[in-house]
Amino acid sequence: MAISDEVRNHKITLTEDEMPTQWYNIVPDLPAPPPPALHPGTHQPAGPEDFAPLFPMALIMQEVSQERYIDIPGGVLDVYRQWRPSPLFRAHRLEQALGTPAHIYYKYEGVSPAGSHKPNTAVPQAYYNAQEGIKKLVTETGAGQWGTALAFATALYGLECEVFQVGASFDAKPFRKLMIEVFGGVVHRSPSQLTEVGKMLASDPKNLSGSLGIAISEAVEVAVKDPETRYALGSVLNHVLMHQTIIGEEALLQLAKVGETPDLIVGCTGGGSNFGGLAFPFLREKMAGKINPRILAAEPASCPSLTRGVYAYDFGDTAGMTPLMKMHTLGKDFIPDPIHAGGLRYHGMAPLISHIYELGLMDAEAVAQTECFSAAVQFARTEGIVPAPEPTHAIALAIREALKAKETGEETVILTALCGHGHFDLAAYDEFLRGGMVDEDVTDERFAAALANLPDMGDSSY
Amino acid sequence: MAISDEVRNHKITLTEDEMPTQWYNIVPDLPAPPPPALHPGTHQPAGPEDFAPLFPMALIMQEVSQERYIDIPGGVLDVYRQWRPSPLFRAHRLEQALGTPAHIYYKYEGVSPAGSHKPNTAVPQAYYNAQEGIKKLVTETGAGQWGTALAFATALYGLECEVFQVGASFDAKPFRKLMIEVFGGVVHRSPSQLTEVGKMLASDPKNLSGSLGIAISEAVEVAVKDPETRYALGSVLNHVLMHQTIIGEEALLQLAKVGETPDLIVGCTGGGSNFGGLAFPFLREKMAGKINPRILAAEPASCPSLTRGVYAYDFGDTAGMTPLMKMHTLGKDFIPDPIHAGGLRYHGMAPLISHIYELGLMDAEAVAQTECFSAAVQFARTEGIVPAPEPTHAIALAIREALKAKETGEETVILTALCGHGHFDLAAYDEFLRGGMVDEDVTDERFAAALANLPDMGDSSY
Repeated sequence: MAISDEVRNHKITLTEDEMPTQWYNIVPDLPAPPPPALHPGTHQPAGPEDFAPLFPMALIMQEVSQERYIDIPGGVLDVYRQWRPSPLFRAHRLEQALGTPAHIYYKYEGVSPAGSHKPNTAVPQAYYNAQEGIKKLVTETGAGQWGTALAFATALYGLECEVFQVGASFDAKPFRKLMIEVFGGVVHRSPSQLTEVGKMLASDPKNLSGSLGIAISEAVEVAVKDPETRYALGSVLNHVLMHQTIIGEEALLQLAKVGETPDLIVGCTGGGSNFGGLAFPFLREKMAGKINPRILAAEPASCPSLTRGVYAYDFGDTAGMTPLMKMHTLGKDFIPDPIHAGGLRYHGMAPLISHIYELGLMDAEAVAQTECFSAAVQFARTEGIVPAPEPTHAIALAIREALKAKETGEETVILTALCGHGHFDLAAYDEFLRGGMVDEDVTDERFAAALANLPDMGDSSY
Repeated sequence: MAISDEVRNHKITLTEDEMPTQWYNIVPDLPAPPPPALHPGTHQPAGPEDFAPLFPMALIMQEVSQERYIDIPGGVLDVYRQWRPSPLFRAHRLEQALGTPAHIYYKYEGVSPAGSHKPNTAVPQAYYNAQEGIKKLVTETGAGQWGTALAFATALYGLECEVFQVGASFDAKPFRKLMIEVFGGVVHRSPSQLTEVGKMLASDPKNLSGSLGIAISEAVEVAVKDPETRYALGSVLNHVLMHQTIIGEEALLQLAKVGETPDLIVGCTGGGSNFGGLAFPFLREKMAGKINPRILAAEPASCPSLTRGVYAYDFGDTAGMTPLMKMHTLGKDFIPDPIHAGGLRYHGMAPLISHIYELGLMDAEAVAQTECFSAAVQFARTEGIVPAPEPTHAIALAIREALKAKETGEETVILTALCGHGHFDLAAYDEFLRGGMVDEDVTDERFAAALANLPDMGDSSY
């Protein structure tokens, strides 16, 4: 690369005074309301009381809220301001390496204490639980980003934290577990022998590598058994996605500062919180006719709930303990290949994103992991940040688009979310650099069995 | 911890326009000039030509410069601005946990791509080498922070990068090596069989865990053999410390923004670059009579070059290939205990810091590693950042001071540098949390042999 003495505007920052002080709830702005969650026994809409053993009332009210904006409490803003507003970067050096006229922007959430976007919701979840007198939170984690974030957040408010980590990630990423322990959390490999559901599922060898669905079942079982314990979910639910909208709200302000209008917004999707957090504020502007970006979900080829799942009522967990949610699903029994992007290995997609996808307001594409890591290494060597495996899916699609722009000569403005760093994922990079990484099994047979086993909705009108 | 809805000022930021655009050279401000580096054969002051096989001329000129300020080139500012100005944090939550009236501030350099302060000098070093047509840089690294930083910087300017990593750290921290490889660098365990000096030193079993001195010898040997290769050093030398003064210059501006005057400035010292970078701008203000903080170096009990070394001419490396430098040294043959703070395991102290210590302008204290990790866990659980083992030495002394302030009731203003995150050091935290960590051997016998073997300066007048 040539030596240049140009000083470019890589980083678009906001002052703390410019930081949004409200979360955005997209529900009231949608052209049709999302289908309700259903009680698994009655198949009737689940009410707040059905969620009460799992969540504090403040979060249940947010889950079903029709308010467009919800104030972020001062005690949460206080913590957010340790790392927020997060920087928006222009990827000048990546653009230069690609030789593209496209403008590539990435909103970087790896600056948070836990190294990902997850504290944006972990902090308010811990805050509201502490406020309602809860003593302990229990949760699942895949790659460990969510578990780390919740352990960080619970430490701040004096809560205990117990984490069931997906077996494949527990084995592959010991440092994430250690980081949870440094924050004072307790970590179990899932499926464990500590819960009834864990013991039951562990008896089937196919479940031994674990899945988010299995770990959720274990965490839910622990939560419902103790009145001073609640469950915390790191994605999927409306209130979780809403907490993440601070990402997109900041990015809107930051792009406006440099006078850019996005043509493409691309984010990786596992349960949907990173994607929803980035995209929903832009979707609001799009629905209002102010901008017209393509909004694109990047999902893993191993677990393509939007592009190869069905839109149906399904359980959020493997054991079938949660309310039924209408979502794009590969079936609650689906165990994805143990790819490195452990945070994307979830059988379902957030009901809100599934609904928005059905409304035709967004697109989705699946990417195989070797393309992702190839993109990630190019990104690291130009931008200097080693991405977590999850956002490499979005980086891969951003690079595809930037190379298209190179052919057409268009100055396409691309925005993506770099939702976390890959400091705990270097074994995956090692595998890639040594040529040992393989792509996922994407044959129809891989997905058929779990898809054939969706809940029987009988004569439910939902 | 009680739930508070107070929104506090944790983070003191600077805009990019407020970022200093010059490095500070403390040499002309000192009451006496530092003793010169000497040619090892003649014992006469080493001239630029003696350094030419190792460094580009621009850096050699900076090494001996008498200018107080040196402009940072635009091409370096361009890269700095990706993560600079770095944040200064007020540790409100740590203060609350300690119950201290002290104000604890930490300047956080872990936000850089490499996760430490090291890119502050790696970037200009790569820049000047690239500008002079050099093709490859070779270096040593301890914990891996410096090697990671240089691999990042060389990738930006299209240079090759070869790193000799201290054996003990190579074995204990495989992820640092992998991160260097992701950036495109090549890493060898030191002592290696790739150099004459490595082969020679590896024949003595006591050298097999390696040391910075040994790794420097290997890197220097590789550099001097190839006219298109130069050596890069991550600490110790004047120009390296000068590049790091951007830390202290920013911190000065940041403390002024909140109207605070520091009573204590404490930084960890290995080779001295983090400490010098933080302290020198404050020392300038102190020498000018504007402020009067105590300036304190926190060194590891295993490798206490300031508090238990001698002030004498010694080699920078184990094999005796470098010019002789007058510094506080434990002897070039000293192999420190394999503590987790690999970046502090250096037998000598920067000549400039050694000289300033002799002038009585600063103090030093040694800390044992269990106290450091105890402080680090408390810091992580309150501030949310897991520190690298090196800065835990400064955090431990900051906490000691804050607890003294609790007794006296004084609102002591403490500033420290959190020079890097500990994402690659979690095995050390694991050892500590499980009760398996032991303190260093600090008996006189531990230090006697190497101290008895300093270079014979004959009738040198230096």
